[in-house]
Amino acid sequence: MIPAKGYAAQNPEAALAPWNYEIREVGHHDVQIRIMYCGVCHTDLHQIRNDWFPGIFPMVPGHEIVGEVVKVGEHVKKFQPGDWAGVGTMVDSCGHCHECGHGHENQCTEGAVWTYNSLGKDGLPTYGGYANVIVVNEHFALRVSKSLDARGVGPLLCAGITTYSPLRRFRVGEGHKLAVLGLGGLGHMAVKFGRAFGAHVTVLSNSAAKRAAALELGAQDFIDMSDAGQVASEKGSFDFIIDCVSAKHDLNLYLGLLGTNGVHICVGIPSEPFELSAFALLSGNKSVAGSGSGGIQETQEMLDFCAKHNIIADVELIDIKDVNAAFDRMVRGDVRYRFVIDLNTL
Amino acid sequence: MIPAKGYAAQNPEAALAPWNYEIREVGHHDVQIRIMYCGVCHTDLHQIRNDWFPGIFPMVPGHEIVGEVVKVGEHVKKFQPGDWAGVGTMVDSCGHCHECGHGHENQCTEGAVWTYNSLGKDGLPTYGGYANVIVVNEHFALRVSKSLDARGVGPLLCAGITTYSPLRRFRVGEGHKLAVLGLGGLGHMAVKFGRAFGAHVTVLSNSAAKRAAALELGAQDFIDMSDAGQVASEKGSFDFIIDCVSAKHDLNLYLGLLGTNGVHICVGIPSEPFELSAFALLSGNKSVAGSGSGGIQETQEMLDFCAKHNIIADVELIDIKDVNAAFDRMVRGDVRYRFVIDLNTL
Repeated sequence: MIPAKGYAAQNPEAALAPWNYEIREVGHHDVQIRIMYCGVCHTDLHQIRNDWFPGIFPMVPGHEIVGEVVKVGEHVKKFQPGDWAGVGTMVDSCGHCHECGHGHENQCTEGAVWTYNSLGKDGLPTYGGYANVIVVNEHFALRVSKSLDARGVGPLLCAGITTYSPLRRFRVGEGHKLAVLGLGGLGHMAVKFGRAFGAHVTVLSNSAAKRAAALELGAQDFIDMSDAGQVASEKGSFDFIIDCVSAKHDLNLYLGLLGTNGVHICVGIPSEPFELSAFALLSGNKSVAGSGSGGIQETQEMLDFCAKHNIIADVELIDIKDVNAAFDRMVRGDVRYRFVIDLNTL
Repeated sequence: MIPAKGYAAQNPEAALAPWNYEIREVGHHDVQIRIMYCGVCHTDLHQIRNDWFPGIFPMVPGHEIVGEVVKVGEHVKKFQPGDWAGVGTMVDSCGHCHECGHGHENQCTEGAVWTYNSLGKDGLPTYGGYANVIVVNEHFALRVSKSLDARGVGPLLCAGITTYSPLRRFRVGEGHKLAVLGLGGLGHMAVKFGRAFGAHVTVLSNSAAKRAAALELGAQDFIDMSDAGQVASEKGSFDFIIDCVSAKHDLNLYLGLLGTNGVHICVGIPSEPFELSAFALLSGNKSVAGSGSGGIQETQEMLDFCAKHNIIADVELIDIKDVNAAFDRMVRGDVRYRFVIDLNTL
C-alpha cells in the first residue's frame, strides 16, 4: 500500500481535517499521480454532508484533480513519469456495458466508481483529490497539456466537462443565442465554452451587480431577472439556456425566455424537484434536458479543446488549511469562480 | 352572413344543446365546408368547462373537422367544390412573424386564431366543428384524400398531428424503441405512427386489461406499469416515450425507463405541474420535451402520409344528440379510441 495524506471529514457533521490513510499500489494499468491542485466543487460539500445519500466515512473529497505522473504500471501506454494528468469525477467502470462501449463511462449501467465516496472494484473506499496522491487506472486519467496554467485546469474536469458536454450534444454554436443561468463554477465555464463555440452568450442573474463580471468573462449581454420589464422584453429570445443553479428555482419562468424548439439544459442539481407546467413545455415545443458530467473520450476532447483555445477556469487559489472557510464562502457564492486547493500547502 | 346550426354550450355549466348562429360570408381566399364528421377531443370538454381559462360563450367546440368543400372564394387555388377538406385546431394566424414564415402557424408569436373559443381577425368569436358548416381561409384548410375513410380522418387533425409532429421532430424510426404512455385518442395514433415509421412500439399502461387492445393496434410489446417487477426489468429500455396522459402522473418513474439520451415527449396536458427530479433528468442525460399540435405544412404532410399508408383513427361514430353522454364516457376512458360525430345526424 502507498501512504497518503489528505483532508477528510470523519463524519457528516465534521469539518475537514488532516488524515493519513493508504491507497493501493500501482497496478499494471495504473498511474500514480502527485496531486498539484484540486478544485472545490459544491458536490464535495453535498457529499460530506450526506445531502443526497449516506456517505462513506472518513471521506476525502475532491474530483477536479490535476497533478504530475510519478509512477506508471508496466502496461501503461498513455503516460510516462513527468507528464501532467487530470482525474475527474470517476476512476473506474464496468468497461463492457453498452454505455462504457460507447465512451459514456459516466453512464455505466453497473454504476461508475466515483473518485471519492464510492467503492472500488476491490471493495475499498475511494479517496479524492484533497490529498497528496492518487492511483488510478490510466483509462480514467486524462492527458493535460503543459501549455495550460495548471491552477485553472482542475475545474475543467468537473465544471468544465459538465457544461462542455451538453453544449456539444446540442451543437450549440454560431447563430445560436445561449443564455447562462447562474454565474458560478459551472456558469462561468458555460460562458467561456459558449463564446468559444461561436454562440451569442447572455448571462441571466437575479443580481444586477453581476453584469460587469459577466461581460468581463466574455458574455455579450446580461439580463437582470429581477427586472420584470427586461424579462418580458426577452420572451422567446433564446435557443438554449444552460441552467447551472442548484438552489430551488422556477423553470417555467425560464421556459418563457426560450423560442420555439428551445432547450433548457439543467446541469445544477437542486435537492427539491422542479415544478414543470405542461403548458410552458408544450407552447413552443420546449424541452428540459439534463446532463451530468461526460465520458472519458469527451473529457479528453474538452481538455484538448481548452489547450488549443487556452481556456481554463478562473480560480482563487487557497491553502488547504483554509478549505472549511472556503466552503462557507462557496455557499454564499463569494468566489470568482472556483476555489482551487494548492496541494503544495498540505 | 351564412346561417349555421350546431351544438353549443351556453355557459361553462351547461350541457351541449342545439344552437343557431351565423358565420361570415365566403371571402376571396375562403372555402366553405359542409361538415361531414367531427372528432370529440378531450380539449373540447376542458374548454367548455373553463378548465384552463375563461371561455367565449356560447361555445361550439370541435377541431377535428372533415367535410366537403361547397363553395370557394375567387382567389382560392387549393380547392374546388366537391373536394374533401379538413380543419384542425386553428383557422388563422398573423402570417408574417418568424414562426408563421417557417410554417409553425400554431406557434404564431401574435397568437394563432383557434378553430373555436377564439376571436378572429374580424373580432368575432370562432365556432368549431360540432356544426353543419364552417368558413376558413384556404391556407388553414387541409386537403383530404378521398381514398381514406372520412369517418376516421377528423381525429388526424388534432390527435394525429399532435403525435406525428414530435415523432418526426425527434426522427423516431428504425432501430428505436418507442414507448407509448396512455392508450386513448392520442396514444393509439402514436402506436400507428410509431409502427409506420419503423420503431419498435411498446404500450405502457396501468391496466393489464389493455394488453390485447395494444397488441391488436400494432404494438409489439406491453408493460403493465402496476407490476413493479416488469417496470424494474425494463429500466433504461427506451429511446423515446410519448406521454399522452392528461391526468397527474409521476414523470420520474418514466424517466427511469429511458436509456441514455432518452427523450420523454409530453403531448398530454395535466392541469397540475409535473414534479421533476433533477437527478432523474441528469442521470442518463434525459430530456422532457413538450409538443403541441403542428403547423399547416406538417399537418398536410401527415395527411398525405396517412393517405399513402392508409392510416386513420379508430373511431366510434355517434349521433350528435349523444354527444353529452359521449363526454361522460370519454372522461372514463371508455372509447376505442375517439368519438366522432356524424354531422348528418344534426
